[in-house]
Amino acid sequence: MTTKSNVDVLIIGAGPAGLMCANGLARAGVNVRIIDQRLLVVPAGQADGIQPRTIEVLQSYGLAERLLREGNQMHMAAFYNPGPNGGIERAGRAPDVTAPTARYPFEVTLHQGAIESIFLDSLYSMGRAVERPVKPTSIELSRNDAELRDPKAYPLKVHLKRPNGADEQSSTEVVNARFVVGTDGAHSWVRKNFAIQMEGEQTDYIWGVIDTIPETNFPDIRNRCVIHSECGSCMVIPREGDKVRLYIQLSDKQVVDPATGRVDKSRVSTDNLMQAVKNIMKPYTIDAREIEWWTIYIIGQRVASKFSIHERVFIAGDACHTHSPKAGQGMNASMNDTHNLVWKLTHVLRGWADISLLKLYEFERRKYAQDLINFDRKFSALFSGKPRTQENQDGVSHEQFLEAFQTFGGFTSGIGIHYAPSTVTDVTYQSLSPGLLIGQRILPQTLIRAADSRPYELQDLCPADIKFKILLFLGDIADPAQAERAQRLADSLGKPGSFLSKYGRAKSGVVGWKVFDLLTICTTRKEMVNFLDVPALLRPHWSKVFVDDVSVALNAGGKAYSTYGIDRSAGAIVVVRPDGYVGIVAPVEDVGVLNTYFAGFMTQRNSSSHL
Amino acid sequence: MTTKSNVDVLIIGAGPAGLMCANGLARAGVNVRIIDQRLLVVPAGQADGIQPRTIEVLQSYGLAERLLREGNQMHMAAFYNPGPNGGIERAGRAPDVTAPTARYPFEVTLHQGAIESIFLDSLYSMGRAVERPVKPTSIELSRNDAELRDPKAYPLKVHLKRPNGADEQSSTEVVNARFVVGTDGAHSWVRKNFAIQMEGEQTDYIWGVIDTIPETNFPDIRNRCVIHSECGSCMVIPREGDKVRLYIQLSDKQVVDPATGRVDKSRVSTDNLMQAVKNIMKPYTIDAREIEWWTIYIIGQRVASKFSIHERVFIAGDACHTHSPKAGQGMNASMNDTHNLVWKLTHVLRGWADISLLKLYEFERRKYAQDLINFDRKFSALFSGKPRTQENQDGVSHEQFLEAFQTFGGFTSGIGIHYAPSTVTDVTYQSLSPGLLIGQRILPQTLIRAADSRPYELQDLCPADIKFKILLFLGDIADPAQAERAQRLADSLGKPGSFLSKYGRAKSGVVGWKVFDLLTICTTRKEMVNFLDVPALLRPHWSKVFVDDVSVALNAGGKAYSTYGIDRSAGAIVVVRPDGYVGIVAPVEDVGVLNTYFAGFMTQRNSSSHL
Repeated sequence: MTTKSNVDVLIIGAGPAGLMCANGLARAGVNVRIIDQRLLVVPAGQADGIQPRTIEVLQSYGLAERLLREGNQMHMAAFYNPGPNGGIERAGRAPDVTAPTARYPFEVTLHQGAIESIFLDSLYSMGRAVERPVKPTSIELSRNDAELRDPKAYPLKVHLKRPNGADEQSSTEVVNARFVVGTDGAHSWVRKNFAIQMEGEQTDYIWGVIDTIPETNFPDIRNRCVIHSECGSCMVIPREGDKVRLYIQLSDKQVVDPATGRVDKSRVSTDNLMQAVKNIMKPYTIDAREIEWWTIYIIGQRVASKFSIHERVFIAGDACHTHSPKAGQGMNASMNDTHNLVWKLTHVLRGWADISLLKLYEFERRKYAQDLINFDRKFSALFSGKPRTQENQDGVSHEQFLEAFQTFGGFTSGIGIHYAPSTVTDVTYQSLSPGLLIGQRILPQTLIRAADSRPYELQDLCPADIKFKILLFLGDIADPAQAERAQRLADSLGKPGSFLSKYGRAKSGVVGWKVFDLLTICTTRKEMVNFLDVPALLRPHWSKVFVDDVSVALNAGGKAYSTYGIDRSAGAIVVVRPDGYVGIVAPVEDVGVLNTYFAGFMTQRNSSSHL
Repeated sequence: MTTKSNVDVLIIGAGPAGLMCANGLARAGVNVRIIDQRLLVVPAGQADGIQPRTIEVLQSYGLAERLLREGNQMHMAAFYNPGPNGGIERAGRAPDVTAPTARYPFEVTLHQGAIESIFLDSLYSMGRAVERPVKPTSIELSRNDAELRDPKAYPLKVHLKRPNGADEQSSTEVVNARFVVGTDGAHSWVRKNFAIQMEGEQTDYIWGVIDTIPETNFPDIRNRCVIHSECGSCMVIPREGDKVRLYIQLSDKQVVDPATGRVDKSRVSTDNLMQAVKNIMKPYTIDAREIEWWTIYIIGQRVASKFSIHERVFIAGDACHTHSPKAGQGMNASMNDTHNLVWKLTHVLRGWADISLLKLYEFERRKYAQDLINFDRKFSALFSGKPRTQENQDGVSHEQFLEAFQTFGGFTSGIGIHYAPSTVTDVTYQSLSPGLLIGQRILPQTLIRAADSRPYELQDLCPADIKFKILLFLGDIADPAQAERAQRLADSLGKPGSFLSKYGRAKSGVVGWKVFDLLTICTTRKEMVNFLDVPALLRPHWSKVFVDDVSVALNAGGKAYSTYGIDRSAGAIVVVRPDGYVGIVAPVEDVGVLNTYFAGFMTQRNSSSHL
């Protein structure tokens, strides 16, 4: 039995990248399906580290609370080197995350299945689910240029096969899709179908991984540890409950079959992995009370030559970049790939943005993947290198390692992700906010809501709801001159030619807010401010006006203007992209700057919308 | 059809007091039932203010997160008085809550039904539900002294009647109960059955209440406002969403029937209540877009002459105290009544504590109710009094009102609740912790967990799990002298005669932790501490050792010893009762002090337990 159907977006592969994509699109109301050929969610092991920036992203989807409740938090890192008495000794401890602006300055560890469940439950709450087991058997992309350029067309035909339960009959389906996202892992079927090459090399480092509940007298067993010993290196990653993940460096002779020269997993067992750990950890003792999962792997750093075929097929996650798990980047890079793609797909499908916007997915994420590979190469070399000892003066010293660890902090935390200038990232007026970099994510700040003095985190006012957030830094709204300037801004925005009128998807006569969310941030003190002083057009609801003042409840606030470097009388308009990254900063006096910016990728109100 | 059954605790009335009781007992695993004669949860109106201390209590049951998400928060209060031009003008704004140690320094407003739903869902997650509609028709208490003193006996016989659906037949049930809790409101059937008197008087203040979504240009409509005008007084309480509650002072001639001299609700309508608001609020305009609920009431301040009959029947909440809703105390006092009762009932039912412990419910809560009534009398008078004007120099000035408002802050916030000395509240060694008052709730403090540097709020380490928390302030555990003293403490606690051994409900040979939870709090720096330095007996799990150090993640911490006034070398042992109140402070060197304290109300290990 073969059925036929149409879908806007078909996602192939329900790992973290695919689930982030499905959840984001479903939240936006997009017609999306997600399939996976595995019957079950990953029960244990696999990727498990969530970086500070990824926590912020999950929070923007309302999903961080559960992650923080269920996961382990790594706040501290400890570093061990060979001591004078043969065994290891602690060289020092340091914060696990070196990223001063991180809202969550720690990493969360939780097994991949639990992280996937957070997305699955979110999908379920929207009446969606992963279709599994479903296997794609063929995929064809139209070669008709007009069709490829038309977001309303269905240029993709995907054949799906699903086993049909007890009677062993299987059903097939032909899906016509507007877009396909391949998030089907390192051995991506989608990637191979379109003959996209992986570029880069395998390296020589071979590692074993064990998830265990240990019995030990090692005092840093609940901290992230980097251990360099005379017997090799080991990394300790504490996990939820009493579990710990151990990464153990292996030598070629332990894993390579001399006859074939290839890695042979059967040469390694949990027993010899644990024996290696015992040797590395001396004089401390460690035993495995229980082993939950284990594997070995060879570090390879590769990036796909392209991330998309004609902006109709995209690959994301492990399908387009592989690297070592050492710095805990894999799952984070994967989820942030599709987080970057979701709003672009949605805007194009709704007819709000031109289809060329989708080119920026590869532009932004492939650059990041390459940076990641370069970083990983340096970090892995450092990690796998020999420690400096009396005998080996060329080895890596604690100071060298710690300096590298902290220098890389902006990168490993994900906080430093910086998208290059493009049609959606315009740095012309960067000087208006020297502390808030265009292309980086909006810096966390505590603000006070003017009407009721309730404190809010600015990042929470910029949720992943596919809207552009227009932050109006208007200075002291109680000052008549500033209030008059705000009124002039409102007048400009109210004109038919303004971006708000042209692209705001207004209902008849009313400026609409489907595409934009306006927030005003004043310098007026909370005891004095009157939210009604903000012109009505800039204030669709009482909850949209804020002041940059201190919150007693949160012991924070009052630092937005100074942190961002925005002049309290000149002010500025900051546009935050739907993914939380700063798209442009513009002067309060010149709405034309924003009109030009949005004209660069948005389409007019009366253009057709598919949603 | 009449059925018979036995239950440990029967709760009559499923308002906030009854639900807090049922949820707490169910969490503790007690055999409890809760009935209500109403078919449905309150859909709107009624009580709606949650004080800072009540938020802490809800958090200790894991229920605050949802309250904070769903409710409105009042951070700011505004005060209005007659201005020179006839209308009102703002005298000033001030923080809504004046309680410097409050963990949540604001009030939450949310309609009573939504608050009840939080408890109902929590009960549901434990497989429990309110039985409704069920009406009690008679209650008898045994007069046999031996039976009354035996916690295993069933001295209560309650007849229940429930309508039986479509066929209009009803069923009856005879319940034999060990204890009955009457949380059946101001007209309590339980109270009347046992002829408990309400003491106190009605007063002359008559108020109207409206829940509405207003259209207004009043700039403080989202703040709590106290408005004194020439046309009467009004209080504004912003609520969830765009709703606002308005309390309006009414004159006798507006509501009293001159023929009978009694209040006649039919003389009042939403129209004339809104007209009163319009008059009071001038020069601002206000209209009701929608009216959700309204009522009128006369302030009465009364307390029941007793809160219990032979410690087998208890009344709680509105059943034993009524007062004005002006300071938002009602629902808070009610929930805190049963929060006080839950752990005592549980300890007695499990055979851990002597039944005399239950006498302390009335001792602690009746005193509080009386304080509340005294406070309410002063506050209501102040609130209902005429404002000071040019013509009325005897009126209440803004300064007088603000001073009273802030002086009463400790009381209205619930933070100041202070239980008097008793067998569970021993102030002998108060001097060891001058900053942490015995009888008050444990002060919030950020601590760092030693093993992994994760920050924790101490209140969250003291959940409402019916255990006594033994906080061991042991100084610098890296100091050999301090470590040695810790070992001596462990040795004392390990002896058969110690409270831990006698009352800890140990399994064979192992010191048990059913009744007690031990937490060690050191002064050692987080970069240096080794949690394994704490003696094993004091450290049943790696997660039980903390340091008093700063958390970067929370921008807090490192102030526990100094705030509590505990000497960093002398240390102290702080015992937190299961309800979160400090029970005793004792010297580290003398476990005998704690042995005596627990002997005062606990029973030995081998005594019978019903659970």
